[in-house]
Amino acid sequence: MIETNLYEAMRTQRAIRRLRPDPIPDDVLHRIFEAATYAPTGGNRQVWRMIAVWDTSTKQQLGRLYAKHWLPYAENFRKTNPDTSGDAAAAMERTLAAGDHLAANLGNIPVVVIVCFEAYGLAVTDVDQGRIPVVGGGSIYPAVQNLMLAARAEGVGCVLTTLLCMSEPEVKKLLNIPEDWATAAMVPLGYSVGVGYGPISRKPVEDLFFQDSWGQPIDAAGEPQ
Amino acid sequence: MIETNLYEAMRTQRAIRRLRPDPIPDDVLHRIFEAATYAPTGGNRQVWRMIAVWDTSTKQQLGRLYAKHWLPYAENFRKTNPDTSGDAAAAMERTLAAGDHLAANLGNIPVVVIVCFEAYGLAVTDVDQGRIPVVGGGSIYPAVQNLMLAARAEGVGCVLTTLLCMSEPEVKKLLNIPEDWATAAMVPLGYSVGVGYGPISRKPVEDLFFQDSWGQPIDAAGEPQ
Repeated sequence: MIETNLYEAMRTQRAIRRLRPDPIPDDVLHRIFEAATYAPTGGNRQVWRMIAVWDTSTKQQLGRLYAKHWLPYAENFRKTNPDTSGDAAAAMERTLAAGDHLAANLGNIPVVVIVCFEAYGLAVTDVDQGRIPVVGGGSIYPAVQNLMLAARAEGVGCVLTTLLCMSEPEVKKLLNIPEDWATAAMVPLGYSVGVGYGPISRKPVEDLFFQDSWGQPIDAAGEPQ
Repeated sequence: MIETNLYEAMRTQRAIRRLRPDPIPDDVLHRIFEAATYAPTGGNRQVWRMIAVWDTSTKQQLGRLYAKHWLPYAENFRKTNPDTSGDAAAAMERTLAAGDHLAANLGNIPVVVIVCFEAYGLAVTDVDQGRIPVVGGGSIYPAVQNLMLAARAEGVGCVLTTLLCMSEPEVKKLLNIPEDWATAAMVPLGYSVGVGYGPISRKPVEDLFFQDSWGQPIDAAGEPQ
């Protein structure tokens, strides 16, 4: 399950929501955490921090907060996708059931990582565009992705979740996060109940990349020469 | 210069701003672009697109827009860090000079990638927290980081920049980006003028990770067992 080839790790980085309670060895966790530190950030200021939660009671409280948002989210998802059928419906239901499992079992997962950032420490260049800003995430989610790729390399399952941000005040109180820091994600870490990492379903390069101008097909999308 | 070991690629992922005009082979670009497609996104909806700009005139126009923001940014940075001295001052000046070079030479860089996202297509869970939202970036910057790690693996230099978002209306017009899509980053791609990828300077795990509660030192921060 250890896969340190960059491309193979990326190609098999599945979201894994059913995690076993088995502990993760310290040296494995250290490599996963260290990978996050390598990520680029604006001005190399690294204005993120991560809290790795081992304590069962704290994880259970995070689980209750998460479930409060997950359950209505899943219900709404089922309602708004009623026409899904066949393989797509089965896949959707598998994902939602895995989410239910995650919400119900957060207290039993070995480590739950809460990603924080300095709320007023980011240089955000897209605040005046009349739409929801995203650029602050440019100094946070590369570190989260490094952490998750390293988890994949080590055979440790994880998934990037953001629903808990809806309970940010409660999470900050629970984890003693300072006033001027905020939360950006929750990443549970543990060994997979099921088969774990494997093939993923993604749009191809030609659907996601354009050349020179929006909508223009890209030349480099051809098969490798 | 090819480095496909995941950890080694991360450990040497320097920001590279001085890029040669030499073209990047199509197969190399294809692997870099494909790496971006593998990244996780909320609900696997992949509501990002990237425009890879080869056209010289378009790159020159992007360069003029970028320089408009870079030059005051760099000037302000020098003014607000007047006490920096010695090695830190030299490092700051090297970075700023490399930024000047990037701004002046964008037209000569082989490929400039503009990262776009569906402005109203993201599930953003942190809009009501009384601070600048970042969660939308959770479905964008993992793909950008995959692209940049793949570039590092291939020995192609790059840097994540966001200043161009300040000219989003002009960029959208130039690249025919639809009304309901927005911009999140500019990533120039090219072979390095200098030595390229190598050691990076980052805070250690014990400075960036806490255990169970904010400020509490982390056990897994010790040396690998």
